[in-house]
Amino acid sequence: MSDERDTHESHVDPFSGQSVSGHVAPLRLSRKAQLAAEPAVTRLIELALGQEDLISFAPGLVDEETLPDADTELACRAVLGNKELARRALQYGTTSGLPGLRRALAAYLTELDARAGVSHEFDPDRIVVGTGSQQLLYLLTQVLVDPGDIVITSAPDYFVYMATLEGAGATMWGVPLDEHGIVPQALEQLFRQLDHEGVLERVRLVYNVSYFHNPTGVTLSLKRRRELLEIVRRWSRKHRILIVEDAAYRELADEPEELPPSLAGLDETDSFVALCQTFSKPYAPGLKCGYAYLPEDLVEAVVCEKTNHDFGSPNLIQHVMLELMERGAYARQVERLRKHYAAKRSILLRALAEARRKLNLPFRWTEPRGGLYVWIVLPEGIRTDSESALFRTAIKHGVLYVPGEYCFLGIRMLNPNTPLGNASNTIRFAYGHCPLDRIEEGVQRFARALADVAP
Amino acid sequence: MSDERDTHESHVDPFSGQSVSGHVAPLRLSRKAQLAAEPAVTRLIELALGQEDLISFAPGLVDEETLPDADTELACRAVLGNKELARRALQYGTTSGLPGLRRALAAYLTELDARAGVSHEFDPDRIVVGTGSQQLLYLLTQVLVDPGDIVITSAPDYFVYMATLEGAGATMWGVPLDEHGIVPQALEQLFRQLDHEGVLERVRLVYNVSYFHNPTGVTLSLKRRRELLEIVRRWSRKHRILIVEDAAYRELADEPEELPPSLAGLDETDSFVALCQTFSKPYAPGLKCGYAYLPEDLVEAVVCEKTNHDFGSPNLIQHVMLELMERGAYARQVERLRKHYAAKRSILLRALAEARRKLNLPFRWTEPRGGLYVWIVLPEGIRTDSESALFRTAIKHGVLYVPGEYCFLGIRMLNPNTPLGNASNTIRFAYGHCPLDRIEEGVQRFARALADVAP
Repeated sequence: MSDERDTHESHVDPFSGQSVSGHVAPLRLSRKAQLAAEPAVTRLIELALGQEDLISFAPGLVDEETLPDADTELACRAVLGNKELARRALQYGTTSGLPGLRRALAAYLTELDARAGVSHEFDPDRIVVGTGSQQLLYLLTQVLVDPGDIVITSAPDYFVYMATLEGAGATMWGVPLDEHGIVPQALEQLFRQLDHEGVLERVRLVYNVSYFHNPTGVTLSLKRRRELLEIVRRWSRKHRILIVEDAAYRELADEPEELPPSLAGLDETDSFVALCQTFSKPYAPGLKCGYAYLPEDLVEAVVCEKTNHDFGSPNLIQHVMLELMERGAYARQVERLRKHYAAKRSILLRALAEARRKLNLPFRWTEPRGGLYVWIVLPEGIRTDSESALFRTAIKHGVLYVPGEYCFLGIRMLNPNTPLGNASNTIRFAYGHCPLDRIEEGVQRFARALADVAP
Repeated sequence: MSDERDTHESHVDPFSGQSVSGHVAPLRLSRKAQLAAEPAVTRLIELALGQEDLISFAPGLVDEETLPDADTELACRAVLGNKELARRALQYGTTSGLPGLRRALAAYLTELDARAGVSHEFDPDRIVVGTGSQQLLYLLTQVLVDPGDIVITSAPDYFVYMATLEGAGATMWGVPLDEHGIVPQALEQLFRQLDHEGVLERVRLVYNVSYFHNPTGVTLSLKRRRELLEIVRRWSRKHRILIVEDAAYRELADEPEELPPSLAGLDETDSFVALCQTFSKPYAPGLKCGYAYLPEDLVEAVVCEKTNHDFGSPNLIQHVMLELMERGAYARQVERLRKHYAAKRSILLRALAEARRKLNLPFRWTEPRGGLYVWIVLPEGIRTDSESALFRTAIKHGVLYVPGEYCFLGIRMLNPNTPLGNASNTIRFAYGHCPLDRIEEGVQRFARALADVAP
């Protein structure tokens, strides 16, 4: 850390002409700042930058081919070209977000669940708009988690949010996943164990990326959703344990009609789930606009803290997003992305199958029906971490992946092995950013690296 | 607070057909969330909404007449109409902000200080772009202040940041202001007192709105700037005390060539000042784009925490802001606003003088040469608080002001009386949002209220 700096310098003040005392005492960072660590991915990015002609399956970026420049330009013109609307969009807004956008989002969430057969009326007054869904995850953590509190995640899970939890001083316990999402029996067992240890009272959140999970791509099945809600309700003895449902990839489904309803929509009590969504994945990250639907008794605390953060995310962006929803451009972009990412994933999965056939190596992967990630599980004995022979060989062959270890970082587990592998034999392949016509070549390079290191 | 809720409901689960246990346990908020309070201004806003034909000098909003719709539209088109640029603007950016914008901002800060006769090279790598300067104030507080630490403010001071400090669990000590800014002798005396009490080690920040201070409108003089730097350096014994220079109103000067250099520019060691500026006041709040220039050894901690908050403010907005700077539209808007607000203030000050002459009441006010605020000091005995006869009478006459008490809230002082009045006999008049042709009428209404309650 940089708080050890202690420089000795000597200067002449240009106004007084006097020599300035040269001793500069070091800064002392807050305890919170001392907890925060350089994100692990920084090293990956450095590696990627140092290599020419690299095919990268690492970053969670979206495909630049698909970015909706024309529609966004039209929406900006519609907002800023209308004197009355422009004035409102360029003035301060409210902390919780543009009322019209919150109404549109409530109707949208209601419609998404209705398509899945659930009638749940989402209330605009319980929606908060933020700077990406990340800010909403941060705010939720901040208003509910004290240092030493427990947050239950999946194992593996989304490493950016895990760094946020680490920064909040939370203790993370991970529940294994299989192809239907987190395993309810394992969640139940974990609660029993925590209760047995006398720390049930410290469990505050259960975090769940419920559609096309990052990094595994799996979707929590309808049956599992009901079980998760039931388990969390039952263990909410003296205080309510909140499910944070991160549905960032919800719209990127090959077959939207196959999707289960949200956990929020299934919660009859309407109080156990905070549902976070975003426009970053299904529209464009550059607008950095996300939103959360909150239990009624959590809205005030989140808005209050957001007032301290920024008293509201950019108003102009919110007006533009509302315009895009109203003119149907948002829905069109979602359609376009669904098909585009399905095509990319299909190439990726075919190339993986081809590689396995040629290599005659028993490795496996998830077969998601949406989202941006495929999760690869290698045979025990082939390590995937950033110090491993495979990782280094892959870079030498010109392909970069995220080692599974990053997705388990800091997570405690009752059993380090899961139905989807463990921290040392797994890989996340993100096909969002990599150009469509480079995917096959990328997998072939990966296969060559695998051939080099396989026993 | 809402964490006491404990509802009993009974439902039938639509999938299982089973009755859902009706008990919903209450949420338990974090200690931090329990510290956060409903902002005091919320009550003002409610009051304002309930009254027709109200002339409001309360909100810190900008004048809607002046909002730069056409220039912003052109900049959006320039960014989004260029395929290559559009793709970059709609993709994720970096946490610290668009490199091109940070370079432009560093050059801009260098130029502003050069105009004031100081040669200080601002380094783009030490600039962080955020969601308004409020986010940067929040991040600085978060990485430097632990609960129980001391932050030295002015008294009175900017109440939104004071709420942020309250939420961080900071103890605030206020230093009085006169027409040249905070009084150095009083600051020195406070440091001596805190040292005497053995709590010098807990002093982390000195917060200073150094140009056209909110709420008083005073600008810290060049001489005082040097004194402030010298005092803070001298009391930074074991750790460095950071000056947070909030220069939100810097550009809104009647005579820019009269402005003193920034504290950051005057700091020869380049390590005692974090300078925060924004596009909200000198361009448009709806873009919600601010920036900070940080001591070298603070950049990593701030960026790390911002990564957890949102991993970067909206990229599109930053591209648009850069475009506006490059095409000169930003500079033109600043020119326009300078003149517009000077004209409004001149009407306000003339009307106040006229009212005083007619009332024959010895009240006084600051005479700022820029910014958005005038501070009024009434004779001892006329109370201004939100429960006072004056406040209620003013609303009855159709005019709203911010009671001075809000600008002293939570601030400890060695002496509650200052050269600019105290918590019970002062008023902030904000002339930003009020239409130009309503100002005189607003002051007349205020004068009628004053006549009603004056002894």
